[in-house]
Amino acid sequence: MFGEEYDVIVVGAGHAGAEAAAAAANLGSKTLLITMNLQTIGQMSCNPAMGGIAKGQIVREIDALGGYSGIVSDKSAIQFKMLNKSKGPAMWSPRTQNDRMRFAEEWRLMLERTPNVDFYQEMVSGLLVENNKIIGVKTSLGIDIKSKSVVLTNGTFLNGLIHIGEKQFGGGRAGEKAATGITEQLLSLGFESGRMKTGTPPRVDGRSLDYSKMIVQPGDTVPEKFSYTNTKPLSHQRDCHMTHTSALVHDLLREGFDRSPMFNGRIKSTGPRYCPSIEDKINRFADKDSHQMFIEPEGWETVEVYVNGFSTSLPEDIQFKALRSVVGFEKVKFFRPGYAIEYDYFPPTQLKHTLETKLIENLYFAGQINGTTGYEEAASQGLMAGINAHLKLNEKEPLILKRNEAYIGVLIDDLITKGTEEPYRMFTSRAEYRTLLRQDNADLRLTPLSYSIGLASEERMNRMEEKLEQSDSLINFFKETSVLPNEINPILTSVDSALVKQSDKMYKAFSRPNVTMDHMLQLEKVSNFIKENNFNSEVLEQAEVQIKYSGYIAKEKVNADKLHRLEAVKIPTNFDYSKLKSLSFEAREKLTKIQPVTISQASRISGVTPSDISVLLVFLGR
Amino acid sequence: MFGEEYDVIVVGAGHAGAEAAAAAANLGSKTLLITMNLQTIGQMSCNPAMGGIAKGQIVREIDALGGYSGIVSDKSAIQFKMLNKSKGPAMWSPRTQNDRMRFAEEWRLMLERTPNVDFYQEMVSGLLVENNKIIGVKTSLGIDIKSKSVVLTNGTFLNGLIHIGEKQFGGGRAGEKAATGITEQLLSLGFESGRMKTGTPPRVDGRSLDYSKMIVQPGDTVPEKFSYTNTKPLSHQRDCHMTHTSALVHDLLREGFDRSPMFNGRIKSTGPRYCPSIEDKINRFADKDSHQMFIEPEGWETVEVYVNGFSTSLPEDIQFKALRSVVGFEKVKFFRPGYAIEYDYFPPTQLKHTLETKLIENLYFAGQINGTTGYEEAASQGLMAGINAHLKLNEKEPLILKRNEAYIGVLIDDLITKGTEEPYRMFTSRAEYRTLLRQDNADLRLTPLSYSIGLASEERMNRMEEKLEQSDSLINFFKETSVLPNEINPILTSVDSALVKQSDKMYKAFSRPNVTMDHMLQLEKVSNFIKENNFNSEVLEQAEVQIKYSGYIAKEKVNADKLHRLEAVKIPTNFDYSKLKSLSFEAREKLTKIQPVTISQASRISGVTPSDISVLLVFLGR
Repeated sequence: MFGEEYDVIVVGAGHAGAEAAAAAANLGSKTLLITMNLQTIGQMSCNPAMGGIAKGQIVREIDALGGYSGIVSDKSAIQFKMLNKSKGPAMWSPRTQNDRMRFAEEWRLMLERTPNVDFYQEMVSGLLVENNKIIGVKTSLGIDIKSKSVVLTNGTFLNGLIHIGEKQFGGGRAGEKAATGITEQLLSLGFESGRMKTGTPPRVDGRSLDYSKMIVQPGDTVPEKFSYTNTKPLSHQRDCHMTHTSALVHDLLREGFDRSPMFNGRIKSTGPRYCPSIEDKINRFADKDSHQMFIEPEGWETVEVYVNGFSTSLPEDIQFKALRSVVGFEKVKFFRPGYAIEYDYFPPTQLKHTLETKLIENLYFAGQINGTTGYEEAASQGLMAGINAHLKLNEKEPLILKRNEAYIGVLIDDLITKGTEEPYRMFTSRAEYRTLLRQDNADLRLTPLSYSIGLASEERMNRMEEKLEQSDSLINFFKETSVLPNEINPILTSVDSALVKQSDKMYKAFSRPNVTMDHMLQLEKVSNFIKENNFNSEVLEQAEVQIKYSGYIAKEKVNADKLHRLEAVKIPTNFDYSKLKSLSFEAREKLTKIQPVTISQASRISGVTPSDISVLLVFLGR
Repeated sequence: MFGEEYDVIVVGAGHAGAEAAAAAANLGSKTLLITMNLQTIGQMSCNPAMGGIAKGQIVREIDALGGYSGIVSDKSAIQFKMLNKSKGPAMWSPRTQNDRMRFAEEWRLMLERTPNVDFYQEMVSGLLVENNKIIGVKTSLGIDIKSKSVVLTNGTFLNGLIHIGEKQFGGGRAGEKAATGITEQLLSLGFESGRMKTGTPPRVDGRSLDYSKMIVQPGDTVPEKFSYTNTKPLSHQRDCHMTHTSALVHDLLREGFDRSPMFNGRIKSTGPRYCPSIEDKINRFADKDSHQMFIEPEGWETVEVYVNGFSTSLPEDIQFKALRSVVGFEKVKFFRPGYAIEYDYFPPTQLKHTLETKLIENLYFAGQINGTTGYEEAASQGLMAGINAHLKLNEKEPLILKRNEAYIGVLIDDLITKGTEEPYRMFTSRAEYRTLLRQDNADLRLTPLSYSIGLASEERMNRMEEKLEQSDSLINFFKETSVLPNEINPILTSVDSALVKQSDKMYKAFSRPNVTMDHMLQLEKVSNFIKENNFNSEVLEQAEVQIKYSGYIAKEKVNADKLHRLEAVKIPTNFDYSKLKSLSFEAREKLTKIQPVTISQASRISGVTPSDISVLLVFLGR
């Protein structure tokens, strides 16, 4: 049936699969997206939101690289918030609430409009492998589809097992069946697999809630957006709400602990530490008698509501009774209960930086199959796998983002260097150079890289260059333009800063603590210059951040350059560490397993000490 | 968990379930709609279209009764056609092509906006029955949900088995799992079940088709709509296309016949006679070397396309090879193959006219579970089951539509009186009084009935009454207003009708063959009267049909009245036919099984002869 051979087959059409297919196809690879159900492309399996702390930066990076997640999120957004706006700009994190149905629909339509993406609905039950090289996939109906490379993005579907209380049944998501066959074959090919667990809260009927008892959580007054392209910011938004659990709620939940698969040993695998179930929170923080809950609408019009913070696999009756004791939930009606799901993953130390597996050539893994959690983490891996699958087929250099270039670089480097034994989630704290990896400059950091490999469009590149030119010109304006004491002193007074006695460059005053762009705009010269040049808010933001945080940024750049030098020291492939007896035993073992590509990567392996690194450097002639 | 008791639980949320829930809830019953997947409410499992011959009339009837199918179809339509417009008005049949995603979304949102409808996502695995009376349902997670009545609308999910070539696997639809448990329990309660089969064609990528080689099938120039409410007719439409199979295509398909589950005995159950698979058509009409195929877009924007006329369960490779030989399909790419599905049904002779089962009180069946095929057939049964479940709980008279009142009456009477051994589809030929059962007068026929039980809204009733008044006033105008020979003769000439020599009432000329409302509008008096009164096109259509077909309509009304008299002769419940030795053996057997409620119903049972009816009438004292 599939007489023709594909360049790239992407298995699974969630966040990872959808981005992988889009990237490979946009680069020019003949791509097939194969999924068990074409109606669930781009499905948000858990909360109806994109972005958030560190994750919002990833969405901006995906967008800067030419991925679709930012555009899809903008088009389906019902609320926008820039989190952490009161902190430094490294912490600013965009987040949208999304209409779940629109999100999936936009994803599907964007993929349909992408030339080179073909679609096929079927379960992939195996891989076609020849001489440790991928040559295609096999479907459950027994069809062989040939391809030069394959990206696996199976999410929670591989031998997925759903738990609610004492019940358990196979499934990839509530109401959808699990995928079988792939794990078993990968094991026979020499891969290691593990099990992970994740969970989701109940969905409820918004008509049954009393919002008047909750705290309104509106979107930003001036909403921004994810994409650097011309998507529109929201003109109106839907509110979320906040409520909380109580000692009573906790007591009611505890009544079900003996029937909890988390506590009675039925669930053996590890769940996401930073997205724990409510029973886990009660257990771990026994002294707290209240936890926050965020009540998120599932779309513009639907009455369905997502109960963020109440993820649980307790028996349905317990979930229900406890939730009815939450303020505002006295009359709650369930759409469906929360549940936990266990699924197979493959420790990501089995991957290269390109996300290609070390064992099977041209086979890539992306998303939860690598032990990560989160839509954004998945999407970014899919994007990078799709890019690198294409580049390799075309005998081009891989695109590997460095830790000082992108959260995506941190994510992938962490995964393949350190592996993970619990669902890996991105945090700003994971990035050594987070002052460099801001949401405001993802385009400046990444669009040129993506443009150079032919993914980011000319238009995107032009936008980025214009923004760069304009912000530079604005920064120069502040550096070159003087301001008189009688002009600037009212502003300095208003922020309790010492007054100046003589004219000086604006840059100097602007650099002082608490002086913001809003203050500077009060100066006629500034506002006129900006008006004349028609600079938009992104340009202002960029200039402000670079001026206000120039010290931090410069310092991190120096550190990053140091790292870069270690990055340049390559370790030969299949290096025999056993010869280096001066390495610690643990270092030898880990280095042999991980086979780091550079000294820098070696230094990040847990158990490899600075003295081990010195040994290596000496041996390699440095 | 579900401490409260529902009035009505509806199991399944397809066309039947969605209408059942809406009707029961709108009448005031506390209703729970329970489905395996809340994201597939109102899913069009097969073609993306509503209505068509006889089926379009049913949609109009559902709408007239206050159901939602007409409104949902109008809101999600991408094309409208009045079929058979060149034939008599009894044959006029509205049909829409629909956006599959929008259709499901509209259904879900309409149900969400309906007070009294609760939602729950889970598989129902059993019924709670006490003393042959329903008291609720049991879910696969072991939850009991109490209710006073239950409507089962399981579609093709009960032990659904999907076939493609030699492969078979459990499933309720492609990519969705089957439902288990209910059939087994119903059998243990004394029900009879059977197996039926249906099928669906491949879905393909519209970008891979060459439409220039096909014949365009546009919508009507002046599109109408289904609903009598204020939904909007389409302002723009999408085209369908027509192509055809060939001798070559048939030969290629024949190559797979030895692997066909239809022909090698793997599929044992009967499929829909009037919606056969392509292999069935080739087999049954061996002399035809071409069959029509209609290429239907799946929505406004999606590239997915439905290949109407090519339903098949042949192996995927055969489907693909053969379809590539169809004109315009030379480069076709599959989204998914066609398949057949076998599922359990319950011979509908086990039901009363209300669709309540005879064995278990307050248990209702609607849709494919009763052996029917088609969205419209399913939706109308759901509506009637929902209505009657509510009426019975409130100790009100049931709403039973007569054969001369509605296609829905014909459908249900056929089902419960004659049963069906193959998927039952509605045709105009099944209705003895089809001149009465027109698409133009469904509101006049049914809205008052529905209004009287509290379902159709005041507004709907007012619209109907206004239309009735206005059309009566227009008919009277034609009856009372004279026209001069020099005014009417040009019209009569244009239709080759004999000229008149003296002034006469307009009605007379209008009644002549080939004279239409369009002709009459050429008369200034007529067009002025219509303008003055602001009559809309529905009023004109109604008046025209009543004038042009008054003879036929009157005749059918007389026949229907006769039927009505037999309808009035009730047969006592549990009547002992074995005592009536003068009945034929077959009649006694069938009458005992079916237990008809009236003499009229008895007369429609196949095998019951007019002489049997005479025996019964004599015995009952007539």
